[in-house]
Amino acid sequence: MTDPLKNIRIVLVRPTRPGNIGAAARAIKNMGLSRLVLVQPVDHLCPDSYTMAYGAHDILERAKVFKSLPRALARCRYVVGTTARTHKGYGKPTPLMKTMPEILTRANRHPVAILFGPESSGLANEEIALCQSLVTIPTAAAHTSINLAQAVMVVAYELRRCAGTEAGKKPAGAAGRRDVVDTDQRERFYRELKELLTMIGFVKGTQGTHIQADLRRIFGRAEPDKRELRILRGIVRQVRWALAHR
Amino acid sequence: MTDPLKNIRIVLVRPTRPGNIGAAARAIKNMGLSRLVLVQPVDHLCPDSYTMAYGAHDILERAKVFKSLPRALARCRYVVGTTARTHKGYGKPTPLMKTMPEILTRANRHPVAILFGPESSGLANEEIALCQSLVTIPTAAAHTSINLAQAVMVVAYELRRCAGTEAGKKPAGAAGRRDVVDTDQRERFYRELKELLTMIGFVKGTQGTHIQADLRRIFGRAEPDKRELRILRGIVRQVRWALAHR
Repeated sequence: MTDPLKNIRIVLVRPTRPGNIGAAARAIKNMGLSRLVLVQPVDHLCPDSYTMAYGAHDILERAKVFKSLPRALARCRYVVGTTARTHKGYGKPTPLMKTMPEILTRANRHPVAILFGPESSGLANEEIALCQSLVTIPTAAAHTSINLAQAVMVVAYELRRCAGTEAGKKPAGAAGRRDVVDTDQRERFYRELKELLTMIGFVKGTQGTHIQADLRRIFGRAEPDKRELRILRGIVRQVRWALAHR
Repeated sequence: MTDPLKNIRIVLVRPTRPGNIGAAARAIKNMGLSRLVLVQPVDHLCPDSYTMAYGAHDILERAKVFKSLPRALARCRYVVGTTARTHKGYGKPTPLMKTMPEILTRANRHPVAILFGPESSGLANEEIALCQSLVTIPTAAAHTSINLAQAVMVVAYELRRCAGTEAGKKPAGAAGRRDVVDTDQRERFYRELKELLTMIGFVKGTQGTHIQADLRRIFGRAEPDKRELRILRGIVRQVRWALAHR
């Protein structure tokens, strides 16, 4: 079995403080993770981030930078969002420690991304929509807003702690063993489905975003494998063909 | 039963970066702790620390500042040092998660201090000598040096996590139930004992520091209560009287 921590990407979405990016790099390395991914970051190779990345300049310099979140997640098979809030349609986010066995089970098999939103606002709704699971770091009610790099540290610490326990070592569960498709493939299907739904007048204008979010949740949970996704896409194509030829 | 987290003091010893003090204050408040203690700190009420203490200015402003560590620990009954290294005479420090039940059990009854050393060097030997227990945050071998505020966050998170579990709620153990003396009372005894040992020529010059450290370890583990400490001090006094009158 591979080291599950090697399969985990810490994804900072639109981080605005270079010091936080550096501190996150250091935390990641402290806890034995290695992959830092940045989406539309502030300049992350400046003095402030280097200072905070003490001992982890390699992680900082090897960080992959993307212009869009879907692109950053393209190869990931499981996407976890961190949030302090309840998001419409998602129910309460799961406490971090309860999600760990699931995350590690996945990471034993395939790439997993854990997303952290910008310092001031957290993940936006369209970013949350890309997640298959939402987790939260339990805090005191008096102060729920955790510094970005501190949140990365807690998640990384908890990953390392649980990876060392039995629960973290148990073999991959049902979804883990299946060859589930990555975000890129799922997103392609959502686009095709949305086109179809627009074409048949099922969704109109801005309504589309909501439906899209619902569909993402449904199929995000379903986690189709390649064969299943082929079937789903086949259905969409077949309906379109039928519509064109009726 | 009181909230054990209220009895825990996070003690930063000679911190040199204001941002770290502020970030520690925020982390403390996030996790439901409230007592920040500073020993010989850099100016902790400057813009940098306020920025990093976002949402926790109250913790920062209520932080107690001391000129010496023994003074800061005077009222504490149990003192835990954080370290990444093995210290002579102490054996390997215990991994953080294994110490939690013990720390929380104590904190259910009396004031507990958790010490964090300066950013660049960690706790000095004479500071380690004041600790009854040493803990370490397990890290990857490739990068063991954790940022000060990040270390505070991990400890505070782990305290909160464990306080919510059964192990954290179990009644105080033997030492917890007893009315153990505080650091101030123990230190007074050590001084008296050292005077005696110097007087009888058992220790000479710098040797005294090593013996003192040994004694601290022994009685630190023994955790005498008030009656027991009276007996110990009585013995020392009696020996001195006998020496003076022989």
